[in-house]
Amino acid sequence: MIDYAKLALQKHKELRGKISTVNKDGLDTKEQLSTYYSPGVGAVSSYVAEHPDELRDYTWTNNLVAVISDGSAVLGLGNIGPEGAMPVMEGKAMLFKHFAGIDAVPIILDVHTPDEIVAAVTAIAKSFGGINLEDIAAPQCFEIEERLKATLPIPIMHDDQHGTAIVTLAGLINSCKITDRKLSDCKIVLVGSGAAGTAIAHLLNEYAHPEIICVDSKGILYKGREGINSEKEKLLAYTNPHNVEGSLEDALTGADVFIGVSQPGLLTAEMVKTMAKDPIIFALSNPVPEIMPDIALAAGAAVIATGRSDFPNQVNNALAFPGIFRGALDNRVRSITNTHKIKAAEVIASLVESPTRETIIPPVGDSRLVPEIAKVIT
Amino acid sequence: MIDYAKLALQKHKELRGKISTVNKDGLDTKEQLSTYYSPGVGAVSSYVAEHPDELRDYTWTNNLVAVISDGSAVLGLGNIGPEGAMPVMEGKAMLFKHFAGIDAVPIILDVHTPDEIVAAVTAIAKSFGGINLEDIAAPQCFEIEERLKATLPIPIMHDDQHGTAIVTLAGLINSCKITDRKLSDCKIVLVGSGAAGTAIAHLLNEYAHPEIICVDSKGILYKGREGINSEKEKLLAYTNPHNVEGSLEDALTGADVFIGVSQPGLLTAEMVKTMAKDPIIFALSNPVPEIMPDIALAAGAAVIATGRSDFPNQVNNALAFPGIFRGALDNRVRSITNTHKIKAAEVIASLVESPTRETIIPPVGDSRLVPEIAKVIT
Repeated sequence: MIDYAKLALQKHKELRGKISTVNKDGLDTKEQLSTYYSPGVGAVSSYVAEHPDELRDYTWTNNLVAVISDGSAVLGLGNIGPEGAMPVMEGKAMLFKHFAGIDAVPIILDVHTPDEIVAAVTAIAKSFGGINLEDIAAPQCFEIEERLKATLPIPIMHDDQHGTAIVTLAGLINSCKITDRKLSDCKIVLVGSGAAGTAIAHLLNEYAHPEIICVDSKGILYKGREGINSEKEKLLAYTNPHNVEGSLEDALTGADVFIGVSQPGLLTAEMVKTMAKDPIIFALSNPVPEIMPDIALAAGAAVIATGRSDFPNQVNNALAFPGIFRGALDNRVRSITNTHKIKAAEVIASLVESPTRETIIPPVGDSRLVPEIAKVIT
Repeated sequence: MIDYAKLALQKHKELRGKISTVNKDGLDTKEQLSTYYSPGVGAVSSYVAEHPDELRDYTWTNNLVAVISDGSAVLGLGNIGPEGAMPVMEGKAMLFKHFAGIDAVPIILDVHTPDEIVAAVTAIAKSFGGINLEDIAAPQCFEIEERLKATLPIPIMHDDQHGTAIVTLAGLINSCKITDRKLSDCKIVLVGSGAAGTAIAHLLNEYAHPEIICVDSKGILYKGREGINSEKEKLLAYTNPHNVEGSLEDALTGADVFIGVSQPGLLTAEMVKTMAKDPIIFALSNPVPEIMPDIALAAGAAVIATGRSDFPNQVNNALAFPGIFRGALDNRVRSITNTHKIKAAEVIASLVESPTRETIIPPVGDSRLVPEIAKVIT
């Protein structure tokens, strides 16, 4: 068993950073210096100043994404601040390059209110062809992404929300195939209404309008419950149509699908047994899922997906974001829409020709993912 | 004669950007993914969050500079905005990589007041090991740099100011050697009190306290003149000790040195003839200098330097900034001081073993520049 904590500390210190920049041409001759810098570059600057829409044709912005975080919700570590976020953002930049050939620059923000974050990102946005927001805590992440999308003409995606939602939808599409269900007829219990949970609910509703019941630390989310914030009010606009109250156990009785983006061990075998026949379980708490796969299967689960690479059916954002940004950049998409997300989920699902309970989503290394997803982001 | 405008437009469009990112290691195996991203990176993030001073030991920030501009004073093009600035900033990033092996990321700002620029740069500063401010108009550039230096614990340098000042000082040190002068005894006429002119005056005063007379579009700068802004008041604290009034011609009579960072053709042969014997001329307006070298030499100039690569003695910032940031990053310098700038100028001057009127500064390609300058930035 590899001690990844130790190995990671070792390798990071040894490499002193995981990414680097390179020049696309030499600067050894006077001709090169005069072409790429003064005086030649002056003509390019003048031209681009007069034709700002062509900025991407003349600069690296056509293939460039910023990976931006304020460090308020880093992996499972919580609000550890911008410095702590940097290794993850640099890792994400590596993923962009490795999977999609996209240049990515990690940016950590030392400001934390939505106003300040929106101001900082807006100020630097023209430097990039797209923006991947990462590891920003809920509920601020919703407002920040919405406001940036409303004003900036480049693709912006908070991956913790939408990457997870897209891959979850892809997995559910194939899980329904296996269990002979229609997603629109499913009763889905969704536990955890942070960034990922909220985005999953919105996307499932957009796609198939199933019956969704959200559950958080206070139990079932229902109209009239005390202390509902505006994001939860948005969820209540379409979830819990019969406005039932109660606990997770109450919600689960007869449910077709459990989706957890909450905490380790929340789901017991007993609860699984109260669900509908052949229940579908997405236990996405990471690294320790809401229920371990062997327990879920023994209790009757037809499909179990987790966030882990050492079990089958890993719900991994890296299935979605590389292709989405590849397509958004190549096709000069100005905004990533729900339609894009649904199409991406359908592509991911379709890449598994014959879904089985152990293969509802393709592996991260599937080389068809990026080009096929990119095609539908237009 | 190469048409660099045409060639530059062609090559920029062909390459679609001049820089790119690369990963320092592969991500092909599960072990690599788990080391550089989840779960291994979590240990690095936790560690860095607890030891933020060690951020640079574990991330690319140890070798990373941001090249930041709001596009308000791009090359000779003026206030052409952030898009127009991008090709120059990307070119500067190339120079950083080529000359000093430093990773550099161009950032263009879509905000323009000092408050907004300071806020945006402060918000993103932890993402970088150093900040090169570029092509920001005077007088805002002074306030912006000062405020950022006062609060951020990383090296920050507005290169248009200090790069030019450092190389000018280096050239003057050797020009004085050739003409058997002491810089402290020189009478220097400095025309143009924008970013570069102001920084040159400050650095010369710090180094040798010569007699400096500043001249701008309204003539000699003197105490009591109308409409003096705070930056010009700072200049008046030590320039023009006899508080003379008058025109450029008046200032030049008997002067040892002319330094122009102003406009083409400002200096005539007649004016040169009124200067002291063996005058030193730095005609740095670019691409067309204040006086052409052949005219200056015919009028009696002992030394003529310009900003152009096709004449001898090119005053080029690229002689200074690569080594300065190389040293600042390697030696974990938290602020670039006047002492650093003076030492850098002395190093540059010292690399010309036997200065002649045609060689007062080394060529940009001199491979000793970066390591020798870096040694004194401690």
